[in-house]
Amino acid sequence: MAIRYPNGKKYAAIQSDTKKKPTLGKTNTYSNRGMTLEDDINHSNAYYLDRGVAVIHKKPTPVQIVDVHYPKRSAAVIKEAYFKQASTTDYNGVFNGHYIDFEAKETKNKTSFPLQNFHDHQITHMKQVLSQKGICFVLLRFSLTDEVFLVDAKQLIHCYENQEERKSIPKKDIQSYGHKISLGLTPRLDYLSIVQKIYLT
Amino acid sequence: MAIRYPNGKKYAAIQSDTKKKPTLGKTNTYSNRGMTLEDDINHSNAYYLDRGVAVIHKKPTPVQIVDVHYPKRSAAVIKEAYFKQASTTDYNGVFNGHYIDFEAKETKNKTSFPLQNFHDHQITHMKQVLSQKGICFVLLRFSLTDEVFLVDAKQLIHCYENQEERKSIPKKDIQSYGHKISLGLTPRLDYLSIVQKIYLT
Repeated sequence: MAIRYPNGKKYAAIQSDTKKKPTLGKTNTYSNRGMTLEDDINHSNAYYLDRGVAVIHKKPTPVQIVDVHYPKRSAAVIKEAYFKQASTTDYNGVFNGHYIDFEAKETKNKTSFPLQNFHDHQITHMKQVLSQKGICFVLLRFSLTDEVFLVDAKQLIHCYENQEERKSIPKKDIQSYGHKISLGLTPRLDYLSIVQKIYLT
Repeated sequence: MAIRYPNGKKYAAIQSDTKKKPTLGKTNTYSNRGMTLEDDINHSNAYYLDRGVAVIHKKPTPVQIVDVHYPKRSAAVIKEAYFKQASTTDYNGVFNGHYIDFEAKETKNKTSFPLQNFHDHQITHMKQVLSQKGICFVLLRFSLTDEVFLVDAKQLIHCYENQEERKSIPKKDIQSYGHKISLGLTPRLDYLSIVQKIYLT
């Protein structure tokens, strides 16, 4: 897997440390704009940070390191390591005193969002955050139509815990209780304006 | 570098993903109790999580992944990767609606805490968190005497930005404006009781 080098964009310092899944050889054209949801969120977070709006970062991919070499006069090289399952969501931070915590997922499905995108430990983490009065949600993208919705964690948890009924969330439900986020340039994905509106006013 | 396997402790799931520095062959007896500051904090965070007191996690060590192999029928193996410098502090989370953000460092010095333990980007992050009304501090341990102090980020930033005067913080200053954290069993390092006292009452 090749690393992604800085790409000359304004917020070039913000890039994912790696792709998690073995998509070797595939390009990242999940949407018409050629950007992944993660790219858009990182770009928006860099914008928020730059403008003093919020401090929200993606957590590094958790890795279990097994073997490290220490060459003379050069940087330590990790020679054997494995991807670990994260124990939390991917993004958190602070927005005007408020704790913000979310996960972002995309699907190529057209009419529903599969719940298999989420895992038990993430749902547990969301419950814990809610019980601590944190603001917790998911950003769900339908990549074929490039639509992104903010869905409150409570709604997601409810669907997740009723999977014997249905293993995915119908898109019409997401359109009903979710909040569509308009795509822009700066920031690309202004999810905090939705957060401000639904949680803080 | 050998990984640390689960050790049979109650909160065994919580352990550091790796040691950052090349301490190969050394044992972790930084203190008389044979525990590192990170061990104590992770243990305390697990206790807080278990009791519903707070949701605070250590962020994974950031790693730049260069080469990954995908063997058939077994887990992906990272074959080449490098340690990256973190762009934030190591710990953050939510405590009863409040955003908590901190860094933890220890020294073997007896009379002062060297500021070289901190880096520009960490100081920048602390300023950003403060400007977003987050609660931000450092936990400083004098490992030879096993004393841990909570020092507000503003104090640390002030010292850091006046390094032409002094490249370390005198211990007597830390004793004066810092808050000593008593060591216990459950949790080992009850820093949130200090947070409650100095920030939230």
